[in-house]
Amino acid sequence: MREISGRELPDMARGAAVLGTGGGGDPYVGRLLAEEAVRRHGPVRLVAVDEVPDDAVVVPTAFMGAPTVLVEKVPSGTETTRALRMVEELIGRRATHTVSIEAGGLNSMIPVAAAAELGLPLIDADGMGRAFPELQMLLPTLGGVAASPMALADERGNTLGLRAVDNGWAERLARTVTVEMGCSAGISLYVLTGRQVKDHLVRGTMTLCERLGRAIRQATDAHTDPVRAAADILSGRLVFTGKVTDVRRRTEGGFARGEALLDGLGDHAGHGMELAFQNEHLVARRDGGVVVSVPDLICVLDTDSGAPVTTEALRYGMRVSVVGAPCDERWRTPEGLALAGPAYFGYDHVYVPV
Amino acid sequence: MREISGRELPDMARGAAVLGTGGGGDPYVGRLLAEEAVRRHGPVRLVAVDEVPDDAVVVPTAFMGAPTVLVEKVPSGTETTRALRMVEELIGRRATHTVSIEAGGLNSMIPVAAAAELGLPLIDADGMGRAFPELQMLLPTLGGVAASPMALADERGNTLGLRAVDNGWAERLARTVTVEMGCSAGISLYVLTGRQVKDHLVRGTMTLCERLGRAIRQATDAHTDPVRAAADILSGRLVFTGKVTDVRRRTEGGFARGEALLDGLGDHAGHGMELAFQNEHLVARRDGGVVVSVPDLICVLDTDSGAPVTTEALRYGMRVSVVGAPCDERWRTPEGLALAGPAYFGYDHVYVPV
Repeated sequence: MREISGRELPDMARGAAVLGTGGGGDPYVGRLLAEEAVRRHGPVRLVAVDEVPDDAVVVPTAFMGAPTVLVEKVPSGTETTRALRMVEELIGRRATHTVSIEAGGLNSMIPVAAAAELGLPLIDADGMGRAFPELQMLLPTLGGVAASPMALADERGNTLGLRAVDNGWAERLARTVTVEMGCSAGISLYVLTGRQVKDHLVRGTMTLCERLGRAIRQATDAHTDPVRAAADILSGRLVFTGKVTDVRRRTEGGFARGEALLDGLGDHAGHGMELAFQNEHLVARRDGGVVVSVPDLICVLDTDSGAPVTTEALRYGMRVSVVGAPCDERWRTPEGLALAGPAYFGYDHVYVPV
Repeated sequence: MREISGRELPDMARGAAVLGTGGGGDPYVGRLLAEEAVRRHGPVRLVAVDEVPDDAVVVPTAFMGAPTVLVEKVPSGTETTRALRMVEELIGRRATHTVSIEAGGLNSMIPVAAAAELGLPLIDADGMGRAFPELQMLLPTLGGVAASPMALADERGNTLGLRAVDNGWAERLARTVTVEMGCSAGISLYVLTGRQVKDHLVRGTMTLCERLGRAIRQATDAHTDPVRAAADILSGRLVFTGKVTDVRRRTEGGFARGEALLDGLGDHAGHGMELAFQNEHLVARRDGGVVVSVPDLICVLDTDSGAPVTTEALRYGMRVSVVGAPCDERWRTPEGLALAGPAYFGYDHVYVPV
């Protein structure tokens, strides 16, 4: 157990946004929410997965919606705590811990804020080891854990609880409610026992986020290469460096979808890259051929500062580097690929691990 | 208190469909559900409003959705009971009674079925004295009663609970969920105390439905005029008799919307009527001028048999009679008209009571 006192939040949010692979929400908004909550309610206890008792009642918290909207419609701060309280009502038990279901600028920080507000310990883990656009795309789904009972809450005060027949229906109903709530909602879902946390979550995510964010900051300060520093920590590799020449985006069915085109610079001059995204980057094609694809991580970083660039922040003229990094091994199983591989997203290429 | 043993259900469903003013669901489906439930679980106790203790926990049940869909997608029978159980969870109390929120072929019968299945007494009343398309259009709304905590359930097993900030948001979120559930859902909402039942509901609706349905049947059997028999019981008047020459319909935002055109017959030969509907008939125009309008009742009956014709059953060539009947006095107040008068539905005519 250690404490998150606030000082580590900028690094943690930066690292989380790298794992967010373009989605998982804006790191700046997430950091502000977590900082404000810690300032008001005091430090958050961060506990390792092994410290969690098997019979713990772990109730995750997150935000659902199009990141494009979350940038402009800042959460009020009560959405996730109200969602968690609704889940407690539906399960008839009080939460003993909270945890992140998704690494990402916002969705790693929301549970920090919720933990501070509710006085709950936060588990050093997450449910994906990255960000994914749909809520059934969680490692616990592979382990048979149900997303519901779940709850959604908006900034106006509307709160909604859901028992779905399966995680696909949980996604479908929650998505339609999120859209009606204005494309963003605080959510709480995937209630886990401590045993299930040990079996199904990715361990050490919050600590990894912090290390990653710190390495990027220190490399920038030392005028060494922050992109390489990030790639090293992720056991990934640089697949492209270039300039953004076009971004096509649309908010569709509650998702931010689109494509970004890059023109190569330096070693990559004369080559082109296309990034396709749905909240997160899904596929990176170099000169038309797939080089990185879901479920592996496609991390887009500002070439100079190493700052992670979310899909909604991508703009013409930005100089960015694209890092491909391996996903959690469980995503590479047939079941993992069926849940969040290329075919699920409508692509016909065969997944080749980074 | 008296018992609904099953024999009275055909009359009751027929009368309810007259009060349903074209909406409130198909009387045949409603009758089948209620008959089946009574056959399986035994008679239902029907209690008068004055028999309900002030501290009773009254949890209404209904179906939400486009009637067009309900005709084809017959409820499984567990939707409303699951919705009521979810409301009980949200309020932390058990229901002592159920009641209809809306008179209509389906929505008067659903509470009969729910009462049989749950072993609850049914109150002889409803929340509108007619049917209306949106769930905030209830007399209890005028009395400040909240629609939520409410719940929705579909035939697959998905169940959803909702605490909305106001009845408008309850309608908005419930409607979007209903559409995603396939345009129909069992619902439970507007939890009332016995005191509120006495203050805000329309008394004696189930008994009125039965009288109305019986009068129509007896008039048909006796070869007297069933339309006049219905109009007399409703203190209404015949405003048109004609033949349906055109029906335009569309399912839009979870509603069945459209217009029906009639060519006059008999005394009305040479004249035309247009009926505009949104689940229910909203406005009846004769030769272009409004003759009956919400919140008053526009009841369309088969001219020969007096059988109520729902908006989704209207077909070219049908010979129908249109009866205008006065609504509950509370709908005629400024607050009542603001909630369910012509202006709310986008019409600019002034309401002139029947």
